[in-house]
Amino acid sequence: MPLGAEKGQLLIISGPSGSGKGTVTKKLIPCDNFALSVSMTTRAPRPGEIDGVDYIFCDKDEFVSIRDNDGFLEHATFSGNYYGTPISYVDQKISQGQTVVLEIEVVGALQVKDKYPDAILVFLMPPTFEDLRKRLMERGTECEDEIERRTRRAREEMTELSKYDYLVVNDDIEQAMRDIHMVVKAEKMKPHRNQCKIDSFYGNNPDVDI
Amino acid sequence: MPLGAEKGQLLIISGPSGSGKGTVTKKLIPCDNFALSVSMTTRAPRPGEIDGVDYIFCDKDEFVSIRDNDGFLEHATFSGNYYGTPISYVDQKISQGQTVVLEIEVVGALQVKDKYPDAILVFLMPPTFEDLRKRLMERGTECEDEIERRTRRAREEMTELSKYDYLVVNDDIEQAMRDIHMVVKAEKMKPHRNQCKIDSFYGNNPDVDI
Repeated sequence: MPLGAEKGQLLIISGPSGSGKGTVTKKLIPCDNFALSVSMTTRAPRPGEIDGVDYIFCDKDEFVSIRDNDGFLEHATFSGNYYGTPISYVDQKISQGQTVVLEIEVVGALQVKDKYPDAILVFLMPPTFEDLRKRLMERGTECEDEIERRTRRAREEMTELSKYDYLVVNDDIEQAMRDIHMVVKAEKMKPHRNQCKIDSFYGNNPDVDI
Repeated sequence: MPLGAEKGQLLIISGPSGSGKGTVTKKLIPCDNFALSVSMTTRAPRPGEIDGVDYIFCDKDEFVSIRDNDGFLEHATFSGNYYGTPISYVDQKISQGQTVVLEIEVVGALQVKDKYPDAILVFLMPPTFEDLRKRLMERGTECEDEIERRTRRAREEMTELSKYDYLVVNDDIEQAMRDIHMVVKAEKMKPHRNQCKIDSFYGNNPDVDI
């Protein structure tokens, strides 16, 4: 079976602020056949963030124009800023057989699942609510009000957990990585993703009907 | 979280005669937390088969009585013999947190999925149709007519593949084992099987609503 014959898959890493989804995604991308889906946003770059790598930064007019042309796989407003995933980039990588990793908020993740039912939804969760609050405080980029707002939002986001395909507890980052790799490998064994292997089974018997 | 708090799962290893499901199941059982579901059958023991280990051998009257009392998770007639999975045994092992492995024909597997939608259905498939026929011939326990009948049946069984959760190609037995272990571990990450972890998340915040 030629390597390019297998279609890729869309892996969504989601969860509350402070779940560690950014760190997990950064560690996944250098792995074989994983590709990052770069999001477009109207928010200002944080120190050290690079345009086109961390995000594609744009102004509101540009964002609205793409959105109105149905050019996003999902889009959401978060803390007053717009975020969206350009559909063209994701489609291209999947057709090349890559596992496209989307790191997005819960609202966006559920929008994508509606549009792409075949997307794999992973909910990343810190072991406890206290861990989550601690991580947000240690980050040091948010003020106290923002931390309070995000922990409240985390409670709401937890109620959507049952809509996800998998729950990964991010206690130890290496274990969380192993868990996600396991999910990706198991998902590759779903019958609808293995038409190549079914074709190979009948390869020497062209008279056999499936 | 106490070890006994997690509910087990029902893993169904199925596929055509000659797919190697018997060999795979025998290798799975000695693994941690795996338990074999022993089937009841009216067929005569093959040389070397032990009553209560390979099968629970019984006569037709006894089988019919259990069946009529809805005591089987599934039951099927195959080559003129009755086969059934006693529901009480499976329930007991699952409640103890074990992965109960059921090795059954395709018809039976689909019956179980109807009764237990949470069962994990694995379709084991040799790499090619020719491999399947070769395996049946090498087994040496079946006559030529029976081999012909089983290969015809295999073609029919392949049409049910899309109803399965996972497809595992049994080319190399060790790789097939790794694939099945991967499936089991990934399935353990499904949100509905992780109420314990969700409870732990809120453990230090009894005032938090889920």
